[in-house]
Amino acid sequence: MIDLPDDASVREAARRLAPLVVRTPVVRNPVLDALLGAELHFKCENLQRGGAFKYRGACNAIFALDDATAARGIVTQSSGNHGTAVALAARARGVPAHVVVPRNAPAIKLAQIREAGARVLLCEPSMAARDAECARVLAETGGTLVHPFDDARVIAGQGTATLELLEDVPGLDAVIAPVSGGGLLSGTTLAARGVDPAITVLGAEPAQAADAFESLRQGRRITDMEPDTICDGLRAHLGERAFAILSRARVEILLAGEAAIVDAMRLHWDRLKLVIEPSCAVPLAALMATRERWAGRRIGVILSGGNVDLDRLPWQPTSA
Amino acid sequence: MIDLPDDASVREAARRLAPLVVRTPVVRNPVLDALLGAELHFKCENLQRGGAFKYRGACNAIFALDDATAARGIVTQSSGNHGTAVALAARARGVPAHVVVPRNAPAIKLAQIREAGARVLLCEPSMAARDAECARVLAETGGTLVHPFDDARVIAGQGTATLELLEDVPGLDAVIAPVSGGGLLSGTTLAARGVDPAITVLGAEPAQAADAFESLRQGRRITDMEPDTICDGLRAHLGERAFAILSRARVEILLAGEAAIVDAMRLHWDRLKLVIEPSCAVPLAALMATRERWAGRRIGVILSGGNVDLDRLPWQPTSA
Repeated sequence: MIDLPDDASVREAARRLAPLVVRTPVVRNPVLDALLGAELHFKCENLQRGGAFKYRGACNAIFALDDATAARGIVTQSSGNHGTAVALAARARGVPAHVVVPRNAPAIKLAQIREAGARVLLCEPSMAARDAECARVLAETGGTLVHPFDDARVIAGQGTATLELLEDVPGLDAVIAPVSGGGLLSGTTLAARGVDPAITVLGAEPAQAADAFESLRQGRRITDMEPDTICDGLRAHLGERAFAILSRARVEILLAGEAAIVDAMRLHWDRLKLVIEPSCAVPLAALMATRERWAGRRIGVILSGGNVDLDRLPWQPTSA
Repeated sequence: MIDLPDDASVREAARRLAPLVVRTPVVRNPVLDALLGAELHFKCENLQRGGAFKYRGACNAIFALDDATAARGIVTQSSGNHGTAVALAARARGVPAHVVVPRNAPAIKLAQIREAGARVLLCEPSMAARDAECARVLAETGGTLVHPFDDARVIAGQGTATLELLEDVPGLDAVIAPVSGGGLLSGTTLAARGVDPAITVLGAEPAQAADAFESLRQGRRITDMEPDTICDGLRAHLGERAFAILSRARVEILLAGEAAIVDAMRLHWDRLKLVIEPSCAVPLAALMATRERWAGRRIGVILSGGNVDLDRLPWQPTSA
């Protein structure tokens, strides 16, 4: 039996996180509304500390620890936003963070995690090597592992963005978030259904990394698909807890193609004036691909993050 | 005698604009605070309708008109954010807008103004030709001219961003905004000093378009300087009303070099996850250039706008 969080876990997380996280704004745009024929409310987690929703889950996990446990430090593996989030949250708690990162991760990611105050441990770029290095550091330090998504407190923390959204914009018909390991989407589901059992919850996934879509369709976790997507934040496979929560809640996953994702990313930059990363553009891309279903609906969109290398963009600007 | 707005004009504008404009968020960032050694509060007018603060002034001028006058339409000249703002504000009021634009303006700007619902009138790219075409359209339509900055109601409207900022973040030591024609900076001055007569008000100007700096230093409007700056929104000369207001309030202008402006622009994108235009980066660039003066101070920064061509950036990204 795995421990699953519920909507009360999200509310508890919200109380814990209130003094720690940025209450991010919700923005709208009439041009995007007109394009989709619906009313879109964007919850700006790209403006969260560390530039992504991940700070919520990391803080909830780390601030829930007792002092003695926390003092032994936090261990995780991630070359992405979770690594930075754990580093920042551990620093906020005043305890050490050890982040295991594959040797081939982009230098900019390593710099970001180090800047956030963590000790970076490089390992070979295989899952086995990452797990082994994590186990070694856990044994060495007696620290606590904070998994990027398959963790009840991480899931509950991610759900707090949706609680805030539904406080600021009551009565939404639907809420949509990207899905990878499923921490954000399962937290979103618990939060949204806790407020309104009839609300539609949608996941958005790249068609070329559609393991969550397939897992929910087949009723079993598919963990052997090779993702092939520009969305560097959406290459993990759905976790056990997320699979259980999303299956039970009958959450529907919408898919988006790579070109549509890049177009949607640019729409966010152009129209919302927000820097978002490719993974964050998948919900709008997926909504546009199924436009006729959303006419007149009021939809909350979780903007997951804005960590993108400004020297490498998925379109081709020239120097001005 | 010219009609000058005062702080009561700004408060009146705020009441008029409350149902019309976006109450834009104020954001912070610990990394930028650490870089400057001060506490920065960014008022996100790049998230305003039309992507810039200009919508406030245009709305205040247009919604103050009586119905019969408004119905004859609005006329302005601008190839930039003011043109779009007038078009959007006129559409919100339900009246026609005629925007005179020089023939050599970028196609993307013309498209933006047309998309916002205005009739675009092309003219030769000289100030004389623009004035002549404006006069012709005014005579033809009996419409009302809304000047981009040298207009009491436009100035009062621009000041409302600062009123909101000081409501959300009381007790700031200083507020800073970019200066070109001076509508934003003079409105900012009236608003800020109306709330706190002792608050420091700063303008930020490109060193290579420093007519406001020189005008205030010499005590007379300098209107023959040739701007040579990447900041396409800061190439106008200080207007008469702004000159009077800024002189009387002894507002200090800080300067920033072109390379520092590009660096600061990128910092906003990277750290705040906000798309801003070069003009909007001048305040942070100017603060950084005078860093030692601001240690520990609490400073409000008006982010003026985010309208930038994503196909042409002032740094050289490669396609990802």
